Amino acid sequence: MNLACQDTPWFLGINLNKILSFYLGLKDTLSFLCPTVDFDVLLYRHEVVGEVVEVGSEVTNFRVGDVVGVGVIVGCCRNCNPCKSDVEQYCNKKIWSYNDVYTDGKTTQGGFAQSMIVDQKFVVKIPDGMSAEQAAPLLCAGLTVYSPLSHFGLNKSGLRGGILGLGGVGHMGVKIAKAMGHHVTVISSSDKKRAEAMEHLGADEYLVSSDATRMQEFADTLDYIIDTVPAVHALEPYLSLLKLDGRLILMGVINAPLQFLTPLVMLGEFLPLCLSPSPRPPSLALFNCKFF
Amino acid sequence: MNLACQDTPWFLGINLNKILSFYLGLKDTLSFLCPTVDFDVLLYRHEVVGEVVEVGSEVTNFRVGDVVGVGVIVGCCRNCNPCKSDVEQYCNKKIWSYNDVYTDGKTTQGGFAQSMIVDQKFVVKIPDGMSAEQAAPLLCAGLTVYSPLSHFGLNKSGLRGGILGLGGVGHMGVKIAKAMGHHVTVISSSDKKRAEAMEHLGADEYLVSSDATRMQEFADTLDYIIDTVPAVHALEPYLSLLKLDGRLILMGVINAPLQFLTPLVMLGEFLPLCLSPSPRPPSLALFNCKFF
Repeated sequence: MNLACQDTPWFLGINLNKILSFYLGLKDTLSFLCPTVDFDVLLYRHEVVGEVVEVGSEVTNFRVGDVVGVGVIVGCCRNCNPCKSDVEQYCNKKIWSYNDVYTDGKTTQGGFAQSMIVDQKFVVKIPDGMSAEQAAPLLCAGLTVYSPLSHFGLNKSGLRGGILGLGGVGHMGVKIAKAMGHHVTVISSSDKKRAEAMEHLGADEYLVSSDATRMQEFADTLDYIIDTVPAVHALEPYLSLLKLDGRLILMGVINAPLQFLTPLVMLGEFLPLCLSPSPRPPSLALFNCKFF
Repeated sequence: MNLACQDTPWFLGINLNKILSFYLGLKDTLSFLCPTVDFDVLLYRHEVVGEVVEVGSEVTNFRVGDVVGVGVIVGCCRNCNPCKSDVEQYCNKKIWSYNDVYTDGKTTQGGFAQSMIVDQKFVVKIPDGMSAEQAAPLLCAGLTVYSPLSHFGLNKSGLRGGILGLGGVGHMGVKIAKAMGHHVTVISSSDKKRAEAMEHLGADEYLVSSDATRMQEFADTLDYIIDTVPAVHALEPYLSLLKLDGRLILMGVINAPLQFLTPLVMLGEFLPLCLSPSPRPPSLALFNCKFF
């Protein structure tokens, strides 16, 4: 394997024989990003773990033999304001890990390739003792949750968080929020996932959204809610669970509009409605959390 | 006049012969708050300036003869979390200045009364040299704008702000944003208010929202927009004007839902959508700005 982009010596090559992909039911998200692709045919592998086999001359953070992870981004322009501000996910020339095009015209193939090249900005060293199976989910669902919690100043112990929906991103949400020292309430539409939430993931509370009495008990108690529901839904029942200045962090990529009434948010007991920032490039801070 | 609430000695009495009321076209807002009142018949005077004529035994901040101002709140429970956190506008037992009921059962009459009693928390001393006519608009429209700018950390010089709509609150928005040292762009649906915005209020730019070329020129340039439009409107054109992490601060009290698409906000170049907190009680900091 040779580095394909000779003009981008900060790229490194990764052998993906150690690949691990993680299917998270993200069809809706990916269909939105890549509407021309039939995701019923093409499975997508965008959380990859592999071994560094080649480094460009300007790669300073990695060396051959390192076990590393890559998420949904493999390159960016490096010059625009988002790139200079460490929010490369907003770069207009960012290169997605799959179904996108490198600067030399080659297609990115995510985890289906035998190997891949990646700007070192978007590579994270997998800590010793963490397996590929443990690391991979952190590279998409994990970052998706970690990013807004960190961005909005919620990465501090003692907070009370809600995780709405348990479908992959929500699973990682519980693990990460617990690792941050939060008291975590899983909110779900039925009782089906109670054991999974409480026993397997270690949530502190489980709340069925149709249980009006319990929902009222939780009114005004949460510092934030991570809303992972990928379909149109009413926001008011969840806004009412938030403390003053609590944050409703929306993660669902939904093609139909969500609605809200301004008086209920202004004059009631809850405040800002915030949308999640896109996941930031892999961050060592996330990988140094003690999840497992 | 005697203080009506003997059990609330932190109230003070204000003679309203020096009253000044300011009609801001807030019928929609007030109709929402008080749906049973016919506001075509009852004009509302909720920004009042008067002279202190009596003080309760626990009133420490004012004395007889002070010229003071009062906004939309005259009392609160003083014990709940919002009251203890200086956000009494979220107290469930707050008492509005008009069309509400004191703890002794008497109706609040806003600026139509000959005199009123008010918890000293909600009274502000009018600085020497500021006329009643200058002070009164600060007590509702002024606080409405000042509160979120302050709450969201935007009260610092050098920012670029947008004021959407020039119908009273927007007027005060321009004055306050300029007093904070911001570069202010007024955004309006037509060219009718250009001279008023630029010459009378001192805005730096004027942008007609239907002018696609100019709107594109302003893409990604504003740190915040104060959206005062009191009717359903699309948010996307204004979100596109915001920088990354810019804030769209919604002030319009609108009974029909507003809509937004999550992918456009998450994957685009703009970030949080924040609703305005309710106006905070009168603040000396606002009154010490040099507006006039």
